Amino acid sequence: MKIIASLALTVASLAAALPAQAQFAKPEDAIKYRQSALTVMARHFGSVAAMANGRVPFNAQAAADNAAIAETLSKLPWTGFVEGSTNAKTKANIWSDAGGFKAAADKMQGEMTKLAAAAKTGNIDAIKAAAGAVGGTCKACHDSYRND
Amino acid sequence: MKIIASLALTVASLAAALPAQAQFAKPEDAIKYRQSALTVMARHFGSVAAMANGRVPFNAQAAADNAAIAETLSKLPWTGFVEGSTNAKTKANIWSDAGGFKAAADKMQGEMTKLAAAAKTGNIDAIKAAAGAVGGTCKACHDSYRND
Repeated sequence: MKIIASLALTVASLAAALPAQAQFAKPEDAIKYRQSALTVMARHFGSVAAMANGRVPFNAQAAADNAAIAETLSKLPWTGFVEGSTNAKTKANIWSDAGGFKAAADKMQGEMTKLAAAAKTGNIDAIKAAAGAVGGTCKACHDSYRND
Repeated sequence: MKIIASLALTVASLAAALPAQAQFAKPEDAIKYRQSALTVMARHFGSVAAMANGRVPFNAQAAADNAAIAETLSKLPWTGFVEGSTNAKTKANIWSDAGGFKAAADKMQGEMTKLAAAAKTGNIDAIKAAAGAVGGTCKACHDSYRND
């Protein structure tokens, strides 16, 4: 009886320690979540990139706001890459090379954090350099782990 | 010539003053963006609501983290409700009663901010009350402006 109570406590503790967002009822839910997070991130990063590229006029406040949102979003999609939640865009090596995928994801988050910091300064040259670095990490990860 | 130059400057200033995220190339892009932002928000709000309802064990840090993300996301979808960007879920009165829709959207954002503040305190009773209020604003807006 003591063993069962102790086991139940261990299971409850483990469940409490898991981030609540790491659990998805169905693989489709995980796919929808990660795609949604990446869509929102891409939109706000795209707003900063458009200013960096001169396609829209530079607005320091808008650049800082959008970069901060993109940074927040950059941390989210990864819990949605639940092993086996494969769709047409998922290359098989995303699961077999999980370490490489994690490194690519971490690199992107790091560059996005640098972009948010650059955007806070309002220095367009720093923003251009940082946005280019983020774009490079998007492409590298897509080349390796996504079917186009 | 001076008038044209002055006009060009005015247009450029107006464009700079617009939030960069308010412009979508196609109505489908606006729909995809707003649905994505609401999907991510619902996921993180759902994590807090699951703790408030006792469906998953309460974890104060996870509640605070998820509520903060939900609060950030709660501010985003609205630029995607570009007039005329209608899909099967959009009731026509979302455009004809734009003031009512904005009030409903503002109410949800206000309650989500209260939830994030409650979650920071770690007080489960305050979180329960605030999560219930957020849920009420979701339902009210869906009942009025969304086809199910």
